[in-house]
Amino acid sequence: MMEQEFSSTLLENAVTELSRLPGVGRKTALRLALYMLRRDEREAVALGQSIIDMRRGIRYCRVCHNISETEVCPLCSDNRRDRSTVCVVENVKDVLSVERTGRFTGLYHVLGGIISPIDGIGPDNIEIASLVERVRAGGIKEVILALSPTMEGDTTNYYIFRKLSALEIPGLSVTRLARGVAVGNELEYTDELTLGRSILDRRPFEN
Amino acid sequence: MMEQEFSSTLLENAVTELSRLPGVGRKTALRLALYMLRRDEREAVALGQSIIDMRRGIRYCRVCHNISETEVCPLCSDNRRDRSTVCVVENVKDVLSVERTGRFTGLYHVLGGIISPIDGIGPDNIEIASLVERVRAGGIKEVILALSPTMEGDTTNYYIFRKLSALEIPGLSVTRLARGVAVGNELEYTDELTLGRSILDRRPFEN
Repeated sequence: MMEQEFSSTLLENAVTELSRLPGVGRKTALRLALYMLRRDEREAVALGQSIIDMRRGIRYCRVCHNISETEVCPLCSDNRRDRSTVCVVENVKDVLSVERTGRFTGLYHVLGGIISPIDGIGPDNIEIASLVERVRAGGIKEVILALSPTMEGDTTNYYIFRKLSALEIPGLSVTRLARGVAVGNELEYTDELTLGRSILDRRPFEN
Repeated sequence: MMEQEFSSTLLENAVTELSRLPGVGRKTALRLALYMLRRDEREAVALGQSIIDMRRGIRYCRVCHNISETEVCPLCSDNRRDRSTVCVVENVKDVLSVERTGRFTGLYHVLGGIISPIDGIGPDNIEIASLVERVRAGGIKEVILALSPTMEGDTTNYYIFRKLSALEIPGLSVTRLARGVAVGNELEYTDELTLGRSILDRRPFEN
């Protein structure tokens, strides 16, 4: 689609900007733009303004690197949370996922990525040094590595484990998420690696 | 996902507004919002502003109901275009599609929908009356019905044909798009209705 094909440069601009979003091609961008044109003006303006306000107002927590509107995020500032346990996650979405389980009451550390040589992401490109610094500062008894069970996740887990072990802090435990059969999944659809891991990691039966 | 799960109301607002878009659920909205947070502030602000500017600046052409930034759109104002031929299309996107073919130099009439009793859209909900008025005003020699070859398209074609015929304007021709085998398609993958229509509508062979 060439630029001169639109009868409006305002439409052209909106389509161009929308098509910069991941997974949005020019066709989808046009569909979204035309949808907004059909809707109430107030609705489209609210959308545009919410994007601007969000981008201008949100920064990253100085402590855990989660998104925040303040220098230290609400989770890190919440004194009811267990400050001795830190859950290390890849990104902001993972914080939401862990929070949604309702099983974790400690603090987080958002790496902002995962070690992936193929994507050119090394240990220095993500928030590992600040994690080591946080643990070195004291008061943390357990670091839970909650990265995806992928090659990159395992590499990152191992790298962080080595770095934290080197601190030689007595009593510090480094744990990782349990791996096994997903709750509610049929056994026959579980891949063999996961099933194998769930046998190795078997637990005493409890009622 | 509940509201209190976001550590930022700015993020919450952006996700809520984004998820009003068609085909965008809360999960996709969150992914888009987090993407914008990672990008340059200028880029996100440009996107938000382009949506606001578009919605505030664009209206519909008084003549053909295509989108326009002026009372009469650039196509209707262009004196190099053939003012005696009007191509009737369902929506703004179809104008772009026809323009892209480079085979049409006349004017358009955008219905803004198609007769569809199942969706509660009748002849009065779309721009049929204004089309009849345009033709009655004179100067139009051919009306090309360029609606999709669907049940709704055929119904709308027929309704418009009847309305225009009732005007009894001498020499006015009402045509529709040719139907047949798509260019570049294998014959064996062409459905039987289309193939049948392409036999009925066969044309003399030309080099």
